[in-house]
Amino acid sequence: MTNFKAYLNHISLDCVIFGFHENQLKVLLLQMKYTKKWALPGGFVKKEESFEEAAERVLKERTGMDNIFLQQFHVFSDPKRSEMNPAVKDLEKSGSGEGLDWFSQRFISTGFYALVDFHKVDPAPDFFSDKCEWKALEEIDNLMMDHRQILDKALETLRLHLTYQPIGYNLLPKKFTMPELQKLYETILGKSLDRRNFQRKILSYKILNKLDERKKGGAYKAPYLYEFNLENYNKALKEGFSGSW
Amino acid sequence: MTNFKAYLNHISLDCVIFGFHENQLKVLLLQMKYTKKWALPGGFVKKEESFEEAAERVLKERTGMDNIFLQQFHVFSDPKRSEMNPAVKDLEKSGSGEGLDWFSQRFISTGFYALVDFHKVDPAPDFFSDKCEWKALEEIDNLMMDHRQILDKALETLRLHLTYQPIGYNLLPKKFTMPELQKLYETILGKSLDRRNFQRKILSYKILNKLDERKKGGAYKAPYLYEFNLENYNKALKEGFSGSW
Repeated sequence: MTNFKAYLNHISLDCVIFGFHENQLKVLLLQMKYTKKWALPGGFVKKEESFEEAAERVLKERTGMDNIFLQQFHVFSDPKRSEMNPAVKDLEKSGSGEGLDWFSQRFISTGFYALVDFHKVDPAPDFFSDKCEWKALEEIDNLMMDHRQILDKALETLRLHLTYQPIGYNLLPKKFTMPELQKLYETILGKSLDRRNFQRKILSYKILNKLDERKKGGAYKAPYLYEFNLENYNKALKEGFSGSW
Repeated sequence: MTNFKAYLNHISLDCVIFGFHENQLKVLLLQMKYTKKWALPGGFVKKEESFEEAAERVLKERTGMDNIFLQQFHVFSDPKRSEMNPAVKDLEKSGSGEGLDWFSQRFISTGFYALVDFHKVDPAPDFFSDKCEWKALEEIDNLMMDHRQILDKALETLRLHLTYQPIGYNLLPKKFTMPELQKLYETILGKSLDRRNFQRKILSYKILNKLDERKKGGAYKAPYLYEFNLENYNKALKEGFSGSW
């Protein structure tokens, strides 16, 4: 991007893109060309765009995907958050002064989290980065600016959502086993769960259809496959799990 | 406000201030001087302020109160939302051209909801309004711009929060009866609840201390008073009700 006049001043967005792969929760990150700092994919809002349209555009550019499950979760507005923007350093080092004024201004950033099917993502770096890679949560240390705080807040939000909303539709394959679903919950919550309690509880929410089909390969007594009951799943996503009050 | 240069362009906030009075959920609204439209209290972000500081400032100005319970809930960014800003009309009618450019720009607004003790609020209109009043939810019809949508989203968020978080500390007096707490829940949810189920459920969350004291006045067998167990209340506010997973 070089046509900064197409965008609104002061307004940015950052995306925490979660994928589930090899029983690990992973986040899509960019590595900046010059400072080598890791960052969340982000962008700005065009004068004729809504925030949601801008976030969809950024996600499409970084992942190649449309129709991603996307949720606003918090606005980050510390007046000093933009002071350490390494994009400025990157621009200085690259020799081109273009964009320095733009990136030197104060940005208030809205965080979006996205849940995606790991296998469908085709990661692509942006103008400032030369790498776009998945990192497992445990591998991630410091990130540029307040991006670590943004990631932590996304994770905290996701954990809180687990207490009243379903999860998994955008993260798991269409058919999955109970142990796979449990592993997803354990990964997000960062703790192990009792197998029988988990099963009893998740079944009580009526968001799963048990299939008359077992996982192929492996043991003689392979686990049954499940799929989400999308009608109930989407209802619970909107209203919270029923029977709450 | 006239010194528009002190504020960031394009960035605004709107506050949905809830109070509980005479068994009704009420919202603090402003009536615009010239167009007579009703509006949510709102404002802008100063160059050296965070969003939270700006929202606290706006709330202080409209209610006279400090330390209000305040929560961001959504960013409203429809590119056309500012086109119908009646502040522009009000300024034209008032004869002063000052501020016309400022109010004619596109604003992306972050919604905050606040929960306050009705009796502590001293409502004060702002520059554009000549009334600042509490309105019961059922009394509220159209509001200016997308403020009705902002109010509805705040209410939807509050209802969803009830499924996993406590509520009431900022809305009820320090000591309250079980029927008063139930009425608060019923008002927010917009439906009646079974008395015994409500009591069983709310007690299971361990956020209440039953006092050895009955409500004064009234019947021979007046209901017991309760207060919130703030330690558990605040923990549940942060982590969701325990035992969820």
